[in-house]
Amino acid sequence: MLLHKGQKLLFIGDSITDCDRAKPAGEGLFGALGKGYVSIVDAMLQAVYPELGIRVVNQGISGNNVVDLQTRWQEDVLDHNPDWLSIMIGTNDVWRQYDTPFIKEWHVYADKYETTLRSLVERTKPKVGNLVLMTPFYLESNEQDAMRRTMDEYGAIVKKIAQETGTLFIDTQAAFNVVLKELYAATLAWDRVHPTQTGHVVLARAFLNKVGFEWNRS
Amino acid sequence: MLLHKGQKLLFIGDSITDCDRAKPAGEGLFGALGKGYVSIVDAMLQAVYPELGIRVVNQGISGNNVVDLQTRWQEDVLDHNPDWLSIMIGTNDVWRQYDTPFIKEWHVYADKYETTLRSLVERTKPKVGNLVLMTPFYLESNEQDAMRRTMDEYGAIVKKIAQETGTLFIDTQAAFNVVLKELYAATLAWDRVHPTQTGHVVLARAFLNKVGFEWNRS
Amino acid sequence: MLLHKGQKLLFIGDSITDCDRAKPAGEGLFGALGKGYVSIVDAMLQAVYPELGIRVVNQGISGNNVVDLQTRWQEDVLDHNPDWLSIMIGTNDVWRQYDTPFIKEWHVYADKYETTLRSLVERTKPKVGNLVLMTPFYLESNEQDAMRRTMDEYGAIVKKIAQETGTLFIDTQAAFNVVLKELYAATLAWDRVHPTQTGHVVLARAFLNKVGFEWNRS
Amino acid sequence: MLLHKGQKLLFIGDSITDCDRAKPAGEGLFGALGKGYVSIVDAMLQAVYPELGIRVVNQGISGNNVVDLQTRWQEDVLDHNPDWLSIMIGTNDVWRQYDTPFIKEWHVYADKYETTLRSLVERTKPKVGNLVLMTPFYLESNEQDAMRRTMDEYGAIVKKIAQETGTLFIDTQAAFNVVLKELYAATLAWDRVHPTQTGHVVLARAFLNKVGFEWNRS
Amino acid sequence: MLLHKGQKLLFIGDSITDCDRAKPAGEGLFGALGKGYVSIVDAMLQAVYPELGIRVVNQGISGNNVVDLQTRWQEDVLDHNPDWLSIMIGTNDVWRQYDTPFIKEWHVYADKYETTLRSLVERTKPKVGNLVLMTPFYLESNEQDAMRRTMDEYGAIVKKIAQETGTLFIDTQAAFNVVLKELYAATLAWDRVHPTQTGHVVLARAFLNKVGFEWNRS
Amino acid sequence: MLLHKGQKLLFIGDSITDCDRAKPAGEGLFGALGKGYVSIVDAMLQAVYPELGIRVVNQGISGNNVVDLQTRWQEDVLDHNPDWLSIMIGTNDVWRQYDTPFIKEWHVYADKYETTLRSLVERTKPKVGNLVLMTPFYLESNEQDAMRRTMDEYGAIVKKIAQETGTLFIDTQAAFNVVLKELYAATLAWDRVHPTQTGHVVLARAFLNKVGFEWNRS
Amino acid sequence: MLLHKGQKLLFIGDSITDCDRAKPAGEGLFGALGKGYVSIVDAMLQAVYPELGIRVVNQGISGNNVVDLQTRWQEDVLDHNPDWLSIMIGTNDVWRQYDTPFIKEWHVYADKYETTLRSLVERTKPKVGNLVLMTPFYLESNEQDAMRRTMDEYGAIVKKIAQETGTLFIDTQAAFNVVLKELYAATLAWDRVHPTQTGHVVLARAFLNKVGFEWNRS
Amino acid sequence: MLLHKGQKLLFIGDSITDCDRAKPAGEGLFGALGKGYVSIVDAMLQAVYPELGIRVVNQGISGNNVVDLQTRWQEDVLDHNPDWLSIMIGTNDVWRQYDTPFIKEWHVYADKYETTLRSLVERTKPKVGNLVLMTPFYLESNEQDAMRRTMDEYGAIVKKIAQETGTLFIDTQAAFNVVLKELYAATLAWDRVHPTQTGHVVLARAFLNKVGFEWNRS
Repeated sequence: MLLHKGQKLLFIGDSITDCDRAKPAGEGLFGALGKGYVSIVDAMLQAVYPELGIRVVNQGISGNNVVDLQTRWQEDVLDHNPDWLSIMIGTNDVWRQYDTPFIKEWHVYADKYETTLRSLVERTKPKVGNLVLMTPFYLESNEQDAMRRTMDEYGAIVKKIAQETGTLFIDTQAAFNVVLKELYAATLAWDRVHPTQTGHVVLARAFLNKVGFEWNRS
Repeated sequence: MLLHKGQKLLFIGDSITDCDRAKPAGEGLFGALGKGYVSIVDAMLQAVYPELGIRVVNQGISGNNVVDLQTRWQEDVLDHNPDWLSIMIGTNDVWRQYDTPFIKEWHVYADKYETTLRSLVERTKPKVGNLVLMTPFYLESNEQDAMRRTMDEYGAIVKKIAQETGTLFIDTQAAFNVVLKELYAATLAWDRVHPTQTGHVVLARAFLNKVGFEWNRS
Repeated sequence: MLLHKGQKLLFIGDSITDCDRAKPAGEGLFGALGKGYVSIVDAMLQAVYPELGIRVVNQGISGNNVVDLQTRWQEDVLDHNPDWLSIMIGTNDVWRQYDTPFIKEWHVYADKYETTLRSLVERTKPKVGNLVLMTPFYLESNEQDAMRRTMDEYGAIVKKIAQETGTLFIDTQAAFNVVLKELYAATLAWDRVHPTQTGHVVLARAFLNKVGFEWNRS
Repeated sequence: MLLHKGQKLLFIGDSITDCDRAKPAGEGLFGALGKGYVSIVDAMLQAVYPELGIRVVNQGISGNNVVDLQTRWQEDVLDHNPDWLSIMIGTNDVWRQYDTPFIKEWHVYADKYETTLRSLVERTKPKVGNLVLMTPFYLESNEQDAMRRTMDEYGAIVKKIAQETGTLFIDTQAAFNVVLKELYAATLAWDRVHPTQTGHVVLARAFLNKVGFEWNRS
Repeated sequence: MLLHKGQKLLFIGDSITDCDRAKPAGEGLFGALGKGYVSIVDAMLQAVYPELGIRVVNQGISGNNVVDLQTRWQEDVLDHNPDWLSIMIGTNDVWRQYDTPFIKEWHVYADKYETTLRSLVERTKPKVGNLVLMTPFYLESNEQDAMRRTMDEYGAIVKKIAQETGTLFIDTQAAFNVVLKELYAATLAWDRVHPTQTGHVVLARAFLNKVGFEWNRS
Repeated sequence: MLLHKGQKLLFIGDSITDCDRAKPAGEGLFGALGKGYVSIVDAMLQAVYPELGIRVVNQGISGNNVVDLQTRWQEDVLDHNPDWLSIMIGTNDVWRQYDTPFIKEWHVYADKYETTLRSLVERTKPKVGNLVLMTPFYLESNEQDAMRRTMDEYGAIVKKIAQETGTLFIDTQAAFNVVLKELYAATLAWDRVHPTQTGHVVLARAFLNKVGFEWNRS
Repeated sequence: MLLHKGQKLLFIGDSITDCDRAKPAGEGLFGALGKGYVSIVDAMLQAVYPELGIRVVNQGISGNNVVDLQTRWQEDVLDHNPDWLSIMIGTNDVWRQYDTPFIKEWHVYADKYETTLRSLVERTKPKVGNLVLMTPFYLESNEQDAMRRTMDEYGAIVKKIAQETGTLFIDTQAAFNVVLKELYAATLAWDRVHPTQTGHVVLARAFLNKVGFEWNRS
Repeated sequence: MLLHKGQKLLFIGDSITDCDRAKPAGEGLFGALGKGYVSIVDAMLQAVYPELGIRVVNQGISGNNVVDLQTRWQEDVLDHNPDWLSIMIGTNDVWRQYDTPFIKEWHVYADKYETTLRSLVERTKPKVGNLVLMTPFYLESNEQDAMRRTMDEYGAIVKKIAQETGTLFIDTQAAFNVVLKELYAATLAWDRVHPTQTGHVVLARAFLNKVGFEWNRS
């Protein structure tokens, strides 16, 4: 596995990362990591690699878009000195364009999204050894759906930045698409955005697979 | 307008009708009619035709399907002796097939839906002068979406029963489709089922138009 | 209709406008526009003219009088750069004279009311293209009632300012009087001030009629 | 004073009597008598005539009309074996005709009111030594107001029954009218029905004056 | 009566005055005057002398002793410009000596009490036309009880200051003693300090008698 | 010590025994024994004699008088088959005579108290090996106080019954009197009835001393 | 994998199974499966084998011991007609012997545990195709700890019954022991009984491994 | 006894001292001393030596380690000018090493613990006449348990500092060990850290014995 003994792994993002985590710490006992994929990743790491002592920190905040991340980047990411950083952002950047279309101040369009995310990655690269970029996703199987198309566009931006900067890349939409072939979207998320436990397992598996997690390790 | 002085108009249905109405009364002051289309219909009738004294009663119950309506039909519909009865049911009959696909006891399939709804209409027709059948709807603009297709099928059943029994018929899906051409579904309902105030106005307008409400009456 | 594509329409006032709106934003999903006439106006605009993308903002605050509005005018009105501004104020200016007659600091008498409201209108006129002045109202059918007489006097001041400044004018008291001929005041408001849903529909209709809303548009 | 040592004085009525009393006891410490005129009457009796040991019991229930009283008369009045009984009922009998005019099952019209109240008095007379009949009231100074006129009609019925049966009679409307000459109704009750502390003092004084309470006793 | 048209009457003190009043205003509708003697005094004044428009303000704060009053005197008394000021303080000054005897910082001994109270009166006299000094009290009939003796001593100080400064004086302990001859202290206050409604009526009567309130006025 | 290995010790009484115990069990973890003397007795027994495994059960219920105990004696005492039973009752029997003197149904006078308590003891004696009778008490140092005199009278009844039936007897009033010589009653209980932690320690010590608890055991 | 398309898998047990599941259903959306290993098993099955449509039901109830299971076996297990049944019970049977040692009615000793569990298995075997027996566990690494020894004894009983009846067997204690070699017990459970998310992943992995779950399936 | 008339005794520590005390005062009525050993010590002192007027203050704060104490030492200890100071700290310093082993910032290792505690004692010695050092403890009977071994190590540090500085020393672990021979740890604390009432009595007894409390004093 790519993670080594004693490393710190920090996740940042929006409500899908947050999931009611403890604030501001984002780590500790009693559900401090929230109820989502971050907590499942942590539990898998502790259960299967207890000897590694991987330290997982959750710095997701509900409602955040990429500009919000930029605002708190120094304090909530860099000051933590993580060895690994995983970023999943973009849901709200896109969603606001569709659920409150007339409040344009709340939208983050593709160019702004791209330049902001790229600047965060470039600023962080020299200081954090391992970066993971996860695409945002939309639990809608119809690829012609307007919001799905936009979300795919943002996903492509994430992919481009990952390739340019040589960071690990996770296509969460692709991971969900496998399940969406079998299950209707409402099974995974009533609002097509906030996943059930099943959806969070999809995210956690995608992450763990990317970092070489050995599922059958005993 | 088709409603006459002193008539009682009863609405029955699921959560879209219920909208946190007072239980069991379903009428009275202080929001007893709930926060949805029933309350808007009532307010429009009182504001524009105050001299008619139309009495509106809301008997919607969240989560109900057509079989649940059948169970409480005598007490919650017939015992009220309404002059008008409006039925909008089917959301949960269909939704459970998509959000909890493995719990089949919670599904009401098309044939059961049709026979149950028809029997309710036929049982009621001799006792209630005026019936209105409203289709269920799904706030998804993609007509090829699996759940939308099923919902359209249930809507066609409602239409067939309305034609067979000669009752007023309202195609709520058609009413929403006009708006869905312009606004993305998430604007009208995060879960594509429970409408915002805008969605409830669409429903209220469709109902009022059907009963000959004169909007410009002064 | 007088409102055009992409315009922003801001409402300001007291508890009748506020109705539990989201603060401070006053717009967004999940009932951010409150439960009163502002929300109905918005829902009607979205439902009937979805292609226009009218943006509605609610800046009402419970308990406010015209002097309170003046205090927050820059931040809560001008900084929003609305295309349309609708003002309905005066209830508390008058009510405090009648429900707490001995606490005179809480009263805003007619001359103060007039000069303050006029100055707000004149200050705003050059910056906001379209102004609507709605009178305050009192849900008491007896025109000789002391508080009703005072409220009518304040309504006349609003009318005078509207005429002087050439702004749109809505006589809400007149709109209610039509209903009060048929329904006793307690049906519309237990305290004769805070309307039921029916009362809010009366207000919304008066506003929409004034801006040329086409009710029968399909 | 007409009340003698060791007597029990029971009040029955609607929300104006109830005022959040302890249920079911209606007596005891810690505000068991509620926050209205019953508690003030009790406190005055204990403070000025502590040696008499008058026992006051409150059996008011919010929302009750005269038919509701009839239903619980045996248990809530007769079974208590009071020496004095004071009845004030009628608010809801009338109010429902005005605030929910279309729900006629909730109305108690004058003839029903009269026959029910008279039967209660006649049934009770042989068992309870001292009866007091208090009129219902409406805190509206305009005597031509529709609901005020109806309330006055019900007050006249109370007076007629008091005269026929030779019971003490208290015209609460007359007591309030003295104050309403000076203070606007909203000062005494926002909804013109549920009095402020001032209104409850008006009621308590009217009662105490009728039973010969000596205010200046030292 | 000594109070004249349009005068403002301010009460200051501890929890017995406070009684859950609205803060900071201490006046207005909806129980703003609290649930104790201040509210009863106000209600009596409005009910019996509605034409005078006496304005009552409650500035009691639970737990206060005379030093606490001194700290907030400018803001909570003088800045209100009352025509009448009624002071009742001393309960906590004494009580802490008995319920937390080892925490001496919480005690206010007699000399400190006397000099502080006198300085407040002398500072206020030139600015407020009418002062009323009410003694603190202890609902214990045994005059040899240690805390009762101390409370009587503080009452005597109040009396001395009243005589020296020529202000109205109310011996609340004497007023209670009349009732305590008939009723055991626990009937008036479980903790011998915070009165029931009966106890608050004793206080209100003592105050109203002192200012020449005409109980039989009609 | 008189208690032997494996014995069950049951306490019954009123609110002073209850102290928010778990209901109905009255034993277990997490504060199931309440916050009063029962819990302190239990903790002392477990801490000092852990090898004995004494099982303590709390069956106190707030507000109970001796007649209430009689009603639930079979279920709450005898069915538990205790080896030891400690009874402390009488507070409410006396208190109601003083705090609600006019509600005589709530009083239990001395003769009724004596016959009821004696019958309980006689009924229990053959079945429970060890009985302890604790007097009720009143935290008032003035022996001439009316309620104190009555409480002493009830205490004397308890003593008489203990002597007649040969059960262990604890004079709780005497135990408190030692402390009351030094501390004013309000330090031990604001209402002179419900003790602070200090008061509960007085009760626990009196009990433990009576059963031969060795405080210095190591 | 051993589970086949459309099968129903029911889990029964105590608080470790329950984890705040929806009651009584134990299945559905919105966290109906609780927050523990059952929910993780379900999410893994849906995420990795979405086409199988495995239906998971949680019938755990906090505090249950094996006798409690017996009481509700017909209704909560057999009436569900599961294809798979997984039983994990024994924690409370053992724990009560250690945390409330004197309340022997709350203990279930080894012989009673064994006969009851065996009878449940034998009664169920003919009706449910696939049974899984999971041992109870105790998160204490010291094998000489008294409660750990007892828990191991109960685990051995489970193993014996599994062997006798030919059902699948999961040694959860063994699964935890691997982790306990690396992590101190308090990391997995403050009270050594209720696991953190990491502990529930250990349980879920043990279950899934036993039924042939293919972790690397894509 | 070592404590003298009028002395102030201050306790400082973590959650075991805190036990929901009043903040910030840490003394007064109504449970201000919390629910733990501090409150029991206080109650014993008041009950058995009421004439001494010992003043007990609780300054424990949940979650504190020795570094946290250092931060607030001036304000929470020295500014109180106690005559006696009792310190019990170390639980969290050790526990975090075991329950969140990867978050090393939360650990206080032995050297840091020793130097910090010693500096606090040396700084305080000249100002506070009487110091008591209580060891931290861990309710685990297995002396080879890793966390128990560490806790014993910290206890030894406390002992060393006490000997060096000549302060009173209490070995709380030794006091608990006596009980742990008879009772399984879960009886005293589910999490082996926060004691039940029995555990707090063990602590209180150890303290009182050390200061020469005479249990049999009458």
